[in-house]
Amino acid sequence: MDENMAMVIFQPSGRRGEVPKGINIIEASRLLGVDIEALCGEKKVCGKCVVRVEEGHFEKYNIQSSMSHVSLWQEEEEKFINEERREKGFRLACVTEVQGDILVFVPEESRAGKQVVSKAARDIYIEHNPAVNVYYVEVDKPTFEEPTGDFERVCRGLEREYGLKNLTVDIFALRQLPTALRDGKWSVTVSVWNDREIIRFRPGKAEKAYGIAIDVGTTTVAGYFCDLTTMEVVDTVSMMNPQCKYGEDVMARITFHMTTPDGLQRMSDDIIEGLNDLLDKAIAGTYPPKKKKKKKKGEKGPVEYVEVPEEGKTYLRLGREDIEDITIGFNTAMHHILLNLNPEFVGLAPFPPVIHHSMDIKARDLGINVNPSTYMFVLPIEAGFVGADNVGVLLAEEPYKHDENQLIIDIGTNGELVLGNRHKLISSSCATGPALEGAQLAFGMRAAPGAIERITIDPETKEVDYKVIGRDAWRKFSEPKEMKAKGICGSGILDVLAELYSSGVILKSGVFNKKLLKDHPRFRKNPDTNQPEFVLAWAEESSIDKDIMITQKDIRQIQLAKGALYAGCKLMVKRMGLEKVDTVKIAGAFGTHVDREKALAMGLFPDCEIEKIKGVGNAAGDGCRTALLNVQKRVEANWCSRNVEYIELTVEENFQQEFMEAMQLPHMTDEFPHLKGIVRDEILNQ
Amino acid sequence: MDENMAMVIFQPSGRRGEVPKGINIIEASRLLGVDIEALCGEKKVCGKCVVRVEEGHFEKYNIQSSMSHVSLWQEEEEKFINEERREKGFRLACVTEVQGDILVFVPEESRAGKQVVSKAARDIYIEHNPAVNVYYVEVDKPTFEEPTGDFERVCRGLEREYGLKNLTVDIFALRQLPTALRDGKWSVTVSVWNDREIIRFRPGKAEKAYGIAIDVGTTTVAGYFCDLTTMEVVDTVSMMNPQCKYGEDVMARITFHMTTPDGLQRMSDDIIEGLNDLLDKAIAGTYPPKKKKKKKKGEKGPVEYVEVPEEGKTYLRLGREDIEDITIGFNTAMHHILLNLNPEFVGLAPFPPVIHHSMDIKARDLGINVNPSTYMFVLPIEAGFVGADNVGVLLAEEPYKHDENQLIIDIGTNGELVLGNRHKLISSSCATGPALEGAQLAFGMRAAPGAIERITIDPETKEVDYKVIGRDAWRKFSEPKEMKAKGICGSGILDVLAELYSSGVILKSGVFNKKLLKDHPRFRKNPDTNQPEFVLAWAEESSIDKDIMITQKDIRQIQLAKGALYAGCKLMVKRMGLEKVDTVKIAGAFGTHVDREKALAMGLFPDCEIEKIKGVGNAAGDGCRTALLNVQKRVEANWCSRNVEYIELTVEENFQQEFMEAMQLPHMTDEFPHLKGIVRDEILNQ
Repeated sequence: MDENMAMVIFQPSGRRGEVPKGINIIEASRLLGVDIEALCGEKKVCGKCVVRVEEGHFEKYNIQSSMSHVSLWQEEEEKFINEERREKGFRLACVTEVQGDILVFVPEESRAGKQVVSKAARDIYIEHNPAVNVYYVEVDKPTFEEPTGDFERVCRGLEREYGLKNLTVDIFALRQLPTALRDGKWSVTVSVWNDREIIRFRPGKAEKAYGIAIDVGTTTVAGYFCDLTTMEVVDTVSMMNPQCKYGEDVMARITFHMTTPDGLQRMSDDIIEGLNDLLDKAIAGTYPPKKKKKKKKGEKGPVEYVEVPEEGKTYLRLGREDIEDITIGFNTAMHHILLNLNPEFVGLAPFPPVIHHSMDIKARDLGINVNPSTYMFVLPIEAGFVGADNVGVLLAEEPYKHDENQLIIDIGTNGELVLGNRHKLISSSCATGPALEGAQLAFGMRAAPGAIERITIDPETKEVDYKVIGRDAWRKFSEPKEMKAKGICGSGILDVLAELYSSGVILKSGVFNKKLLKDHPRFRKNPDTNQPEFVLAWAEESSIDKDIMITQKDIRQIQLAKGALYAGCKLMVKRMGLEKVDTVKIAGAFGTHVDREKALAMGLFPDCEIEKIKGVGNAAGDGCRTALLNVQKRVEANWCSRNVEYIELTVEENFQQEFMEAMQLPHMTDEFPHLKGIVRDEILNQ
Repeated sequence: MDENMAMVIFQPSGRRGEVPKGINIIEASRLLGVDIEALCGEKKVCGKCVVRVEEGHFEKYNIQSSMSHVSLWQEEEEKFINEERREKGFRLACVTEVQGDILVFVPEESRAGKQVVSKAARDIYIEHNPAVNVYYVEVDKPTFEEPTGDFERVCRGLEREYGLKNLTVDIFALRQLPTALRDGKWSVTVSVWNDREIIRFRPGKAEKAYGIAIDVGTTTVAGYFCDLTTMEVVDTVSMMNPQCKYGEDVMARITFHMTTPDGLQRMSDDIIEGLNDLLDKAIAGTYPPKKKKKKKKGEKGPVEYVEVPEEGKTYLRLGREDIEDITIGFNTAMHHILLNLNPEFVGLAPFPPVIHHSMDIKARDLGINVNPSTYMFVLPIEAGFVGADNVGVLLAEEPYKHDENQLIIDIGTNGELVLGNRHKLISSSCATGPALEGAQLAFGMRAAPGAIERITIDPETKEVDYKVIGRDAWRKFSEPKEMKAKGICGSGILDVLAELYSSGVILKSGVFNKKLLKDHPRFRKNPDTNQPEFVLAWAEESSIDKDIMITQKDIRQIQLAKGALYAGCKLMVKRMGLEKVDTVKIAGAFGTHVDREKALAMGLFPDCEIEKIKGVGNAAGDGCRTALLNVQKRVEANWCSRNVEYIELTVEENFQQEFMEAMQLPHMTDEFPHLKGIVRDEILNQ
């Protein structure tokens, strides 16, 4: 490497490249297409561009990052970064110069183009039967004749009024009782978990209880903050998984654990810290914007609403102690890492997890700051590569309650597949990798402003029109400089491929149609890599001053992903003895944005009627929510996890051949009858 | 107060007095009869005399103690006291001069006359049925055909081999499983709590499991460290309750909570820290003295014994993680304070506790450092003033399984009484205060070397002979300077009183027989207090260079205590409709040392045949031990706590009158037929 250059890697985006030594981190971020907030224009006065320079050897990128690879601490930074954060490596990006190889983590609040996480809650039918219920009870004062203790007095009331028997009590809740009972003038509201354990006492009458369903993805984390009494979703909150800095996929994180002495602890701590931030976000949303967290001194009792007359609104006003139940789902590796369970063997054939069963863990035992007596229900796991997130999908979609054969595809950083009906369910996983989410591509990026999300290519001229996130107008109705394109996001990838294919730019083998493209201005061979590439947006339309292209290698990546997915689906259909599936459901952010026709045109999954292909959004998260609001779903979850038969595809006889074949783009119309009309005949018959 | 004098209070002994300013703390301790270890003779080189100067206002003594009331930090101290301890107020007593009022805490290791805690375990019959059992299980390796997770694999084995079903697992235990299973070559030893929850996995085959039964008294704490598999008491450990510095009795501690913002937290933290020290002591006892806690690197699996050939012995070698079960009993106030439950209402009529029921609390939730998944079984409580310690006494003595009427008296810092048989049990408490334990008397002291424990007074000459703890020879067989007397301990008090009474020195009203004692060298009036007093040991026989006396006020204190006790017993007998009791059992250290005839002579409890009066030692601790080794006793404990009828004596109609009468020393031979022959007729008829 040129000794005047240094390698800079930005996390969590994964963007990396060489930059000239001596430039500051903001300048480096621009060169590499990473947006860091810098309101003051590098005048060192706004303090918005805080980043963290990581210490350590990052095997994946083969770099040694160190705080000694950046310029010295400056006085200006003290205003924005306290001693504690300074020691953790936090710096102002506008002040700090690159002097050697570094890995820079950009905290979410410093990212200018905030992630658009499409994990909103769907309307699904849930029976109301939460694990945590609130009961109001009035009792007599103790006397010399009847000096029975507070707890027994309240239990007697709960049995008399609600038939609750043999209740136990968490010690942290019990500590609230003597004061609550007297503040409430011998009346209390009692929160009871699973009709078994008392987890909270509040003085007098309170009606509400809140909970949160959390879906921890490899890349993103979403939380549905719910009113347990009405099932209303009070707020949906989301964030990036802070473990991204240790590697983008589960295998990379398992490897990090195996190669770093305290790797597991660090990853576990990071996601817990992240969840606490997420919970803070959920809580903060319940405060009136101008009156956050201010409490009148001496104020007592349950004041859950606050009126803000100047806004004409009534806000909830909750604290962390108001979160009384949590459900959580994740893939097996994320499950193990969060719970600090050794994930090593999940990454080694035959991939046995440490545990399948669901668990009820006190949130405090994991360092999660909610009501100290709150339990977290951890959804059960199906297998090493089909985790609790897939159980969540099943809980939300309930294929086991239907006669028709449903194929449910959950495309996150890995693909998880379920196929079956009320009689039988089988599941599997396929290594799609993150290509379908736009990662690992030359200009792949997350769904953030500037990302190309829709595209059309003229079949005749091969000219490109496109649209980016953050701007409604398409390219052809805009000035070049208005587009500010930056890359291609996950939902755009499929569009790009399908358009390249149906416009004839690439052949069914995925190779560029060189004959056709000869002398086309958008088609060229990269002088460095000797790879053919096709320009989607010109440098003048971009905010990074570079042509945004799709390369032959990118296309191969996507073909590998779609090949793995298609081969997996096909083998499962065969295993179930079926000819075809009745319904295809696509979960995950990918499913929300995907164009069904284009997915079919790309051969992502076996042929199916277009109207029978459905995006079901974040079904894993919805499943967690059903388990939060209906305790019966927790029983169902354990049933699912033990009764879905897991099939290890890679050891299936025909896997390799199916996989190779599936990498081709669809062409056999007998296998894809519904393709007709989507892809033109002359293309199919190329 | 003289401006050249300062008030110094030593804890935990409670010794206090004015000393001249400018003397060092060791000198002050000698003046006040407190022994601080000073091996080097104040040469500032041994570092044994470490004490802590407490900061704050101590209402009970009305003093403001401050580190600014002692001389400045000296270089010599640095060798023995690190920065952290220095900040907590630790000082060398030989260096530090008194310059104002202070409260000094003498840590146990600095006390020269170590407490003789008589809390050894008795031989009692216990059925072997512990809550924690260990099971060994071998499982198959996972394969692609059968990739079931570790936990389910082990559960299947436990069901097959031992019929254990539906087991849950603590998250902290689960973290051990993947490694234990592989280190043990697919065999593990599983510890199961209550046939319900897995709390530990060890690789391969392990046979032992250990637990500890703890009895937390207001003044002392005792622990029985037991082998759960054989019921053997491996070790008995004890310590002072570190809360003594906040006050000697429960009311003082409740008051400390009510008058100090973080008082409850401080007291709770102190006892937890104390318990951790006690557990360390128990563990340390299992190491060979010269090889403490050394572990070979890379050593794996359960190595529980270590041979020390040079000593010809085999030692257990355990760690904190080997403590897998805990039971604990205490009076209601100690229960509340340790569990950080507001004790305020236990101190206010009608004294309702926060909870009666037993609790299973994870030791980690209280900050107790044992195996992280270990539960602590907290014995249930009978009433505000009859705590879990009394339930322990009942478990050990089982009066509910006998026909005869047993009166069980547990004299700790307060008296707890139970009376009854298999048909009915009633309980009560009486405010004996700590006088019967030797506290609050002019020369009262704990059972430590130098304490007068036996005494005889010649009825003719009124000359005194006595014996001190730590020396076998009585006074009359010793040189004066060999005695090194220092004070009177609890077991000596009753001896003193009984001898004073039966030798005619005091009358049945408790007043000195002034006529008889006129001109007797041992009898005099104190010029300061104008109180009559009687010298037991002359200054030349003492190690504190003072005459050791018993004062009229001391005698009143003991009369108050014995009056409360006797009146309580009598009212209970009446309430049960009885004429007399069949058996009197005396628990606590007092019961171990008490001379039954003298106790009867003093009228501590209603008349009973001498041979039917039994000391039952630390029955409360023994009860905790039965609950540790036999889980059925835990069920029995809850039954006891709810089926013993508590009687509040102070609201009984005749209480005041009975109490006044009972303060007299016994004289009515019709009420005490068994007194005849113990106390001479002429005395009884005075």
